[in-house]
Amino acid sequence: MSSSKIKLNGRIWIENADGPMLGPGRVELLERIQQSGSIRQAAMQMGMSYRQAWQLVDHMNVNLADPVVISHRGGKGGGKAEVTATGQKAIAEFKRIHQLFHDFMDQHSKEIDL
Amino acid sequence: MSSSKIKLNGRIWIENADGPMLGPGRVELLERIQQSGSIRQAAMQMGMSYRQAWQLVDHMNVNLADPVVISHRGGKGGGKAEVTATGQKAIAEFKRIHQLFHDFMDQHSKEIDL
Repeated sequence: MSSSKIKLNGRIWIENADGPMLGPGRVELLERIQQSGSIRQAAMQMGMSYRQAWQLVDHMNVNLADPVVISHRGGKGGGKAEVTATGQKAIAEFKRIHQLFHDFMDQHSKEIDL
Repeated sequence: MSSSKIKLNGRIWIENADGPMLGPGRVELLERIQQSGSIRQAAMQMGMSYRQAWQLVDHMNVNLADPVVISHRGGKGGGKAEVTATGQKAIAEFKRIHQLFHDFMDQHSKEIDL
Protein backbone atom coordinates (compact mmCIF):
# COMPACT_ATOMS: atom_id res chain seq x y z
CA MET A 1 0.00 0.00 0.00
CA SER A 2 1.38 3.37 -0.94
CA SER A 3 0.30 6.36 1.13
CA SER A 4 0.00 9.76 -0.49
CA LYS A 5 1.40 11.29 2.71
CA ILE A 6 4.75 9.59 2.13
CA LYS A 7 7.40 11.85 0.65
CA LEU A 8 11.09 12.38 0.26
CA ASN A 9 12.77 15.08 2.32
CA GLY A 10 16.37 16.06 2.87
CA ARG A 11 18.99 18.72 3.01
CA ILE A 12 22.03 19.62 0.95
CA TRP A 13 25.06 21.78 1.47
CA ILE A 14 28.28 22.70 -0.32
CA GLU A 15 31.46 21.58 1.40
CA ASN A 16 35.19 21.49 0.90
CA ALA A 17 37.76 19.15 2.46
CA ASP A 18 37.40 21.00 5.78
CA GLY A 19 33.62 20.59 6.02
CA PRO A 20 30.41 22.48 5.21
CA MET A 21 30.88 25.86 3.53
CA LEU A 22 27.43 26.88 2.39
CA GLY A 23 23.99 25.53 3.28
CA PRO A 24 20.44 26.79 3.78
CA GLY A 25 21.23 28.47 7.11
CA ARG A 26 24.28 30.37 5.88
CA VAL A 27 22.47 31.46 2.74
CA GLU A 28 19.58 32.76 4.86
CA LEU A 29 22.13 34.59 7.03
CA LEU A 30 23.72 36.20 3.96
CA GLU A 31 20.31 37.26 2.64
CA ARG A 32 19.35 38.78 5.98
CA ILE A 33 22.67 40.63 6.17
CA GLN A 34 22.02 41.93 2.67
CA GLN A 35 18.53 43.11 3.64
CA SER A 36 19.45 44.64 7.00
CA GLY A 37 23.01 45.77 6.32
CA SER A 38 23.91 44.34 9.72
CA ILE A 39 25.35 41.03 10.94
CA ARG A 40 23.88 41.79 14.37
CA GLN A 41 20.36 42.35 12.98
CA ALA A 42 20.60 39.22 10.81
CA ALA A 43 21.76 37.16 13.81
CA MET A 44 18.88 38.44 15.96
CA GLN A 45 16.34 37.65 13.24
CA MET A 46 17.62 34.08 13.11
CA GLY A 47 17.84 33.62 16.88
CA MET A 48 21.58 33.15 16.93
CA SER A 49 24.27 35.06 18.79
CA TYR A 50 26.30 37.76 17.08
CA ARG A 51 29.37 35.67 17.78
CA GLN A 52 27.88 32.63 16.03
CA ALA A 53 26.81 34.67 13.01
CA TRP A 54 30.19 36.35 12.81
CA GLN A 55 31.94 32.98 12.92
CA LEU A 56 29.77 31.66 10.06
CA VAL A 57 30.52 34.75 8.00
CA ASP A 58 34.23 34.57 8.81
CA HIS A 59 34.31 30.88 7.82
CA MET A 60 32.74 31.74 4.43
CA ASN A 61 35.10 34.69 3.99
CA VAL A 62 38.10 32.41 4.53
CA ASN A 63 36.87 29.41 2.55
CA LEU A 64 35.41 31.05 -0.54
CA ALA A 65 37.57 32.59 -3.25
CA ASP A 66 36.84 36.11 -1.98
CA PRO A 67 35.07 37.52 1.10
CA VAL A 68 31.27 37.23 1.03
CA VAL A 69 30.69 40.01 3.57
CA ILE A 70 32.67 43.18 4.19
CA SER A 71 32.16 45.04 7.46
CA HIS A 72 32.50 48.80 7.64
CA ARG A 73 33.23 49.59 11.26
CA GLY A 74 31.98 52.42 13.42
CA GLY A 75 29.42 55.15 12.79
CA LYS A 76 26.15 55.75 14.57
CA GLY A 77 24.45 52.48 15.59
CA GLY A 78 27.53 50.38 14.83
CA GLY A 79 29.11 49.20 11.62
CA LYS A 80 27.48 48.40 8.33
CA ALA A 81 27.88 44.99 6.70
CA GLU A 82 27.80 44.58 2.95
CA VAL A 83 27.33 41.38 0.99
CA THR A 84 29.90 41.42 -1.81
CA ALA A 85 29.43 40.33 -5.43
CA THR A 86 31.02 36.99 -4.44
CA GLY A 87 28.48 36.67 -1.62
CA GLN A 88 25.60 37.44 -3.96
CA LYS A 89 26.90 34.88 -6.42
CA ALA A 90 27.13 32.31 -3.61
CA ILE A 91 23.49 32.99 -2.63
CA ALA A 92 22.31 32.65 -6.23
CA GLU A 93 24.37 29.52 -6.91
CA PHE A 94 23.14 27.74 -3.79
CA LYS A 95 19.52 28.68 -4.46
CA ARG A 96 19.78 27.44 -8.04
CA ILE A 97 21.05 24.03 -6.92
CA HIS A 98 18.59 23.93 -4.01
CA GLN A 99 15.71 24.43 -6.45
CA LEU A 100 17.00 21.49 -8.52
CA PHE A 101 17.15 19.44 -5.30
CA HIS A 102 13.52 20.32 -4.55
CA ASP A 103 12.56 19.28 -8.09
CA PHE A 104 14.45 16.00 -7.50
CA MET A 105 12.56 15.35 -4.25
CA ASP A 106 9.18 16.19 -5.78
CA GLN A 107 9.81 13.93 -8.74
CA HIS A 108 10.94 10.93 -6.70
CA SER A 109 8.37 11.42 -3.92
CA LYS A 110 5.75 10.38 -6.44
CA GLU A 111 7.54 7.12 -7.18
CA ILE A 112 7.93 5.87 -3.61
CA ASP A 113 6.11 2.59 -3.23
CA LEU A 114 6.21 1.38 0.38
CA MET B 1 38.09 30.82 -8.65
CA SER B 2 36.51 27.41 -8.51
CA SER B 3 38.18 24.80 -6.33
CA SER B 4 38.07 21.15 -7.35
CA LYS B 5 37.70 20.26 -3.65
CA ILE B 6 34.28 21.91 -3.51
CA LYS B 7 31.38 19.49 -3.72
CA LEU B 8 27.74 19.02 -2.92
CA ASN B 9 26.81 16.81 0.02
CA GLY B 10 23.56 16.06 1.76
CA ARG B 11 21.17 13.55 3.18
CA ILE B 12 17.69 12.36 2.30
CA TRP B 13 15.01 10.41 4.11
CA ILE B 14 11.45 9.26 3.53
CA GLU B 15 8.88 10.77 5.86
CA ASN B 16 5.16 10.84 6.48
CA ALA B 17 3.10 13.51 8.24
CA ASP B 18 4.46 12.30 11.61
CA GLY B 19 8.12 12.66 10.64
CA PRO B 20 11.02 10.57 9.31
CA MET B 21 10.18 6.95 8.50
CA LEU B 22 13.19 5.64 6.62
CA GLY B 23 16.69 7.04 6.18
CA PRO B 24 20.27 5.82 5.83
CA GLY B 25 20.54 4.81 9.51
CA ARG B 26 17.32 2.80 9.60
CA VAL B 27 18.17 1.09 6.33
CA GLU B 28 21.59 0.14 7.71
CA LEU B 29 19.85 -1.18 10.83
CA LEU B 30 17.48 -3.32 8.73
CA GLU B 31 20.38 -4.67 6.69
CA ARG B 32 22.33 -5.58 9.82
CA ILE B 33 19.26 -7.28 11.32
CA GLN B 34 18.91 -9.23 8.09
CA GLN B 35 22.57 -10.28 8.18
CA SER B 36 22.72 -11.15 11.89
CA GLY B 37 19.15 -12.28 12.51
CA SER B 38 19.25 -10.21 15.70
CA ILE B 39 18.15 -6.71 16.66
CA ARG B 40 20.57 -6.85 19.59
CA GLN B 41 23.53 -7.74 17.36
CA ALA B 42 22.57 -5.08 14.80
CA ALA B 43 22.28 -2.46 17.58
CA MET B 44 25.70 -3.40 18.98
CA GLN B 45 27.31 -3.19 15.53
CA MET B 46 25.93 0.32 15.11
CA GLY B 47 26.82 1.47 18.63
CA MET B 48 23.23 2.05 19.69
CA SER B 49 21.28 0.59 22.57
CA TYR B 50 18.93 -2.34 22.06
CA ARG B 51 16.12 -0.09 23.22
CA GLN B 52 16.93 2.56 20.60
CA ALA B 53 17.15 -0.05 17.81
CA TRP B 54 13.92 -1.66 18.96
CA GLN B 55 12.16 1.74 18.94
CA LEU B 56 13.35 2.46 15.38
CA VAL B 57 12.13 -0.96 14.24
CA ASP B 58 8.83 -0.53 16.05
CA HIS B 59 8.34 2.89 14.46
CA MET B 60 8.87 1.39 10.98
CA ASN B 61 6.58 -1.54 11.83
CA VAL B 62 3.79 0.86 12.79
CA ASN B 63 4.28 3.41 9.99
CA LEU B 64 4.82 1.21 6.98
CA ALA B 65 2.01 -0.77 5.38
CA ASP B 66 3.20 -4.02 7.02
CA PRO B 67 5.85 -4.84 9.64
CA VAL B 68 9.44 -4.68 8.41
CA VAL B 69 10.84 -6.95 11.14
CA ILE B 70 9.22 -9.90 12.89
CA SER B 71 10.74 -11.14 16.15
CA HIS B 72 10.58 -14.79 17.10
CA ARG B 73 10.98 -14.88 20.88
CA GLY B 74 12.89 -17.29 23.06
CA GLY B 75 15.21 -20.17 22.21
CA LYS B 76 18.91 -20.49 22.97
CA GLY B 77 20.73 -17.15 22.84
CA GLY B 78 17.53 -15.13 22.67
CA GLY B 79 14.99 -14.52 19.93
CA LYS B 80 15.56 -14.39 16.22
CA ALA B 81 14.59 -11.34 14.17
CA GLU B 82 13.56 -11.64 10.56
CA VAL B 83 13.33 -8.86 7.97
CA THR B 84 10.05 -9.35 6.12
CA ALA B 85 9.39 -8.97 2.40
CA THR B 86 8.06 -5.47 3.17
CA GLY B 87 11.31 -4.70 5.00
CA GLN B 88 13.40 -5.98 2.11
CA LYS B 89 11.36 -3.89 -0.30
CA ALA B 90 11.87 -0.82 1.92
CA ILE B 91 15.66 -1.41 1.90
CA ALA B 92 15.72 -1.78 -1.90
CA GLU B 93 13.45 1.22 -2.49
CA PHE B 94 15.49 3.53 -0.27
CA LYS B 95 18.79 2.36 -1.78
CA ARG B 96 17.44 2.93 -5.29
CA ILE B 97 16.45 6.53 -4.51
CA HIS B 98 19.64 7.10 -2.53
CA GLN B 99 21.69 6.08 -5.57
CA LEU B 100 19.77 8.61 -7.68
CA PHE B 101 20.52 11.22 -5.01
CA HIS B 102 24.23 10.39 -5.21
CA ASP B 103 24.07 10.74 -8.99
CA PHE B 104 22.35 14.11 -8.51
CA MET B 105 25.09 15.30 -6.15
CA ASP B 106 27.89 14.09 -8.41
CA GLN B 107 26.35 15.78 -11.41
CA HIS B 108 25.80 19.15 -9.75
CA SER B 109 29.08 19.10 -7.79
CA LYS B 110 30.83 19.57 -11.13
CA GLU B 111 28.80 22.68 -11.89
CA ILE B 112 29.46 24.60 -8.68
CA ASP B 113 31.24 27.83 -9.48
CA LEU B 114 32.18 29.67 -6.30
